[in-house]
Amino acid sequence: MIVTIIGLGLIGGSLAISLKEKGLVTHRIGVDLSPENCRKALALGFIDEISPDLAAAVQRADLVVVAVPMDAMLTVLPQVLDAVENQVVIDVGSTKSMLLAAVAGHLRRGRFVAVHPMAGTEYSGPEAAVAGLFEDKTLVICDADQSDADAVAQVKQLFTQLAMRIEYLDAAAHDLHTAYVSHISHITSFALALTVLEKEKEVDQIFALASGGFASTVRLAKSSPAMWVPIFRQNRVNVLDVLDEHIKQLQHLRQLIDHEDFAAVYQQIEQANLIKKILK
Amino acid sequence: MIVTIIGLGLIGGSLAISLKEKGLVTHRIGVDLSPENCRKALALGFIDEISPDLAAAVQRADLVVVAVPMDAMLTVLPQVLDAVENQVVIDVGSTKSMLLAAVAGHLRRGRFVAVHPMAGTEYSGPEAAVAGLFEDKTLVICDADQSDADAVAQVKQLFTQLAMRIEYLDAAAHDLHTAYVSHISHITSFALALTVLEKEKEVDQIFALASGGFASTVRLAKSSPAMWVPIFRQNRVNVLDVLDEHIKQLQHLRQLIDHEDFAAVYQQIEQANLIKKILK
Repeated sequence: MIVTIIGLGLIGGSLAISLKEKGLVTHRIGVDLSPENCRKALALGFIDEISPDLAAAVQRADLVVVAVPMDAMLTVLPQVLDAVENQVVIDVGSTKSMLLAAVAGHLRRGRFVAVHPMAGTEYSGPEAAVAGLFEDKTLVICDADQSDADAVAQVKQLFTQLAMRIEYLDAAAHDLHTAYVSHISHITSFALALTVLEKEKEVDQIFALASGGFASTVRLAKSSPAMWVPIFRQNRVNVLDVLDEHIKQLQHLRQLIDHEDFAAVYQQIEQANLIKKILK
Repeated sequence: MIVTIIGLGLIGGSLAISLKEKGLVTHRIGVDLSPENCRKALALGFIDEISPDLAAAVQRADLVVVAVPMDAMLTVLPQVLDAVENQVVIDVGSTKSMLLAAVAGHLRRGRFVAVHPMAGTEYSGPEAAVAGLFEDKTLVICDADQSDADAVAQVKQLFTQLAMRIEYLDAAAHDLHTAYVSHISHITSFALALTVLEKEKEVDQIFALASGGFASTVRLAKSSPAMWVPIFRQNRVNVLDVLDEHIKQLQHLRQLIDHEDFAAVYQQIEQANLIKKILK
């Protein structure tokens, strides 16, 4: 099987590595607007050939993966579908409603399966690509009923072989849930980094004192704006809704601490501890 | 050397393990108000003997470690100093100003060295104790000039042998910096857990979709209220100050997203990315 991967960053590159490792593809064609990314992907060896011609690269493939930031996704995916005959196309994007609306009327809509691998790191670019990124993670397939049954079956089989769990959601539910379990975590991390950078002028002290807990809550603040700004734009309504609730919770804790109502703070922490049941 | 460890939880237990592993102590006496903790510490083998008599356990020791929550610390530390002759006593507490004020006039103040190992996990209790917890972490020694020089030298040597870096701060600076690099991370994590638990009634969806990023930002929300409420109480003024700045940063990001000023969101994320320079 020949795969064409458009967008040679963390997700596209990691997928190229995993597909080859599992023997699921024989040849990997890479497409990326950045000559630097193309050069790196070849040097790292996760792409066998670079193609400057999107349509030709799509036509030669059995499977096409579109792994570009969500703003570019809105224009690239329709171009890919224009070049498709019977191939299967997947995106790997973090938001779905706007993207699915953009290709809703496309003649080849059935060949497209919208998927979101719930896997990622705070790093980006070809050099961030790693083996095993998808193992034991969840793949969400969105609006599966809008895709041809054979295309969905092929995608499901492929990602099951990468040791992913498959979940099905409609696009609206996907965008709501990811606002809670992914997008808000990034916003709190960005805000936490800004808080510390704003107030802690003694940067050496942060470096000396920062322990595992701080590193853990703030690591997502290293994430790329080129990836995250389009996500916040496309999932704006849900993100604002979750952010309002989060600010409300912080203000409540603030008020309890300010009023020295530590019995209530204790209860709030006990309540927060219930997250143990959900997280491993 | 005989060590007496008062408080057989994560930090006390981990220290007991490390001190023995490095051959720095020959006998470990444990003191804990909870019979359950005493039983577990013996069963886990990080304590050689349990003593029900605090004063006797202090008198037999060369080194005394007080590793109880910060509220208990305020009463236990003076009791320990009452029983001390020439031993060295350390706390391992997360806040310092109130504690140091509580023992400021004590006759044996010089034998006490206030330290804070910047190491911990979201787990608590004897079963959370692990080997290697302190390695490559920072130990802050506070108000060293208030302690006898020989006591400070002994503490410095001991923790250097545990592969810790030593930093010196006064108590006020310690409490300010830890509000930024530790306490605020816990509050955002608690608030994030409360946000998700409040709004995400479909708990199965959180479980299925939550990826590494979410787990990372929310893992501190598993932390014990018995440990954290006294910290927030004793460092209340600094915590409120940092919390106000954090809420302000979140409200600013919220406003930019609401007004669709994504160029400014991009800039804010680039600014947050500067945390890369500080975190490994």
